[in-house]
Amino acid sequence: MAEDMTLFWGSGSPPCWRVMIALEEKKLQGYQQKLLSFEKMEHKSKEVMELNPRGQLPAFKHGNNIVNESYAACLYLESQFKSQGPQLIPDSPEEQAMVYQRMFEAQTLQQKLSDVIYYTWRVPEAERLESALKRNKEALTAELQLWEQYLQKMEAGSYLAGKSFSMADVVAFPVVAYAVRFGLSQDRYPQLGLYYSLVKERPSVKASWPPHWLQNPQGMDTLKDL
Amino acid sequence: MAEDMTLFWGSGSPPCWRVMIALEEKKLQGYQQKLLSFEKMEHKSKEVMELNPRGQLPAFKHGNNIVNESYAACLYLESQFKSQGPQLIPDSPEEQAMVYQRMFEAQTLQQKLSDVIYYTWRVPEAERLESALKRNKEALTAELQLWEQYLQKMEAGSYLAGKSFSMADVVAFPVVAYAVRFGLSQDRYPQLGLYYSLVKERPSVKASWPPHWLQNPQGMDTLKDL
Repeated sequence: MAEDMTLFWGSGSPPCWRVMIALEEKKLQGYQQKLLSFEKMEHKSKEVMELNPRGQLPAFKHGNNIVNESYAACLYLESQFKSQGPQLIPDSPEEQAMVYQRMFEAQTLQQKLSDVIYYTWRVPEAERLESALKRNKEALTAELQLWEQYLQKMEAGSYLAGKSFSMADVVAFPVVAYAVRFGLSQDRYPQLGLYYSLVKERPSVKASWPPHWLQNPQGMDTLKDL
Repeated sequence: MAEDMTLFWGSGSPPCWRVMIALEEKKLQGYQQKLLSFEKMEHKSKEVMELNPRGQLPAFKHGNNIVNESYAACLYLESQFKSQGPQLIPDSPEEQAMVYQRMFEAQTLQQKLSDVIYYTWRVPEAERLESALKRNKEALTAELQLWEQYLQKMEAGSYLAGKSFSMADVVAFPVVAYAVRFGLSQDRYPQLGLYYSLVKERPSVKASWPPHWLQNPQGMDTLKDL
């Protein structure tokens, strides 16, 4: 089946990475793929725009079915290949509720992280304000503390939604790893640090680790004061 | 089953409304519910915070399972009550891909709409800039035009993801209705206008129509120039 799939992706992008983790978990290695450069604006290239009129990565196709939104692609892959690889969305109501809940809370974490990391990229220079960036940092700090509390309440060695690796981890781990890459203190956020250490060793995650992070292991310090 | 469910909600909030539409579609009338006032800050009340530490609405519980994120609640309800009411996420790969894709694109529509409608509410007065609001309006205009194109390519009378009403409509319709409520021109966005007219008559939508919109049918003109 995987030869029927095509993924255009960018290195380090959490939305791209989560689709790649889902593909690995679902044993769908061997898909067609092309690594594109955001710096060279290749996400606006004709081949991407034909799949994704938003000009965003990932752009993903299975046969003739186009599923570019990363959450959409992850849910589609789990649904279509439910019995292949581990089940990422449990059937039991209790577990399923938790997986869905944390999956979508991860979008807020991603948003608040982006509001800080991409502030200077998104806001034209003439409009940048220390007060706005400070507020974004405070919102991200509160968000990170909420996740610390969530993890604190779980048994040691748990994943985000319970004892098993789930779709909550597929979508959220790239965001956590991104925060670490941008300098999140694992001393001040020890639960997130432990979670990061646990999941980074997972084969699906290692197999899809951003190549430019491997080449340049040194990250940024954007979040060091948080 | 529905007596085991509790929903705290606010009138007109698209995230609340989509959960209510999903409950109606899944024939889960009779759930416990409480209408709260955002103006009175009741979403920060103790009863909400106990369910949802974010202090946001909706706050939703089924038995002991808490699913507050609106997309999470919708997916949970469809999964747990798949054969009750219409199937909102089709099994066929082609149809399913489209439903998931449009579901998650609707989040971008909601975000860009919020960036305009809530601009003065979110940005402190001293930081407000005409240039920033103008950019947000341009981004929303481009987004609305994209949805016009999507609908244009569908057969007349279609829903967002095909001939059948689906989860894409459950999550997106409240956002479209919100845009109309805030003055979106149905002359300049005729496809969205037709879509709005089609779906607003659906029983699940009528049954959950925001009560304060019924009391005050006159909306705002925030988007009139878009």
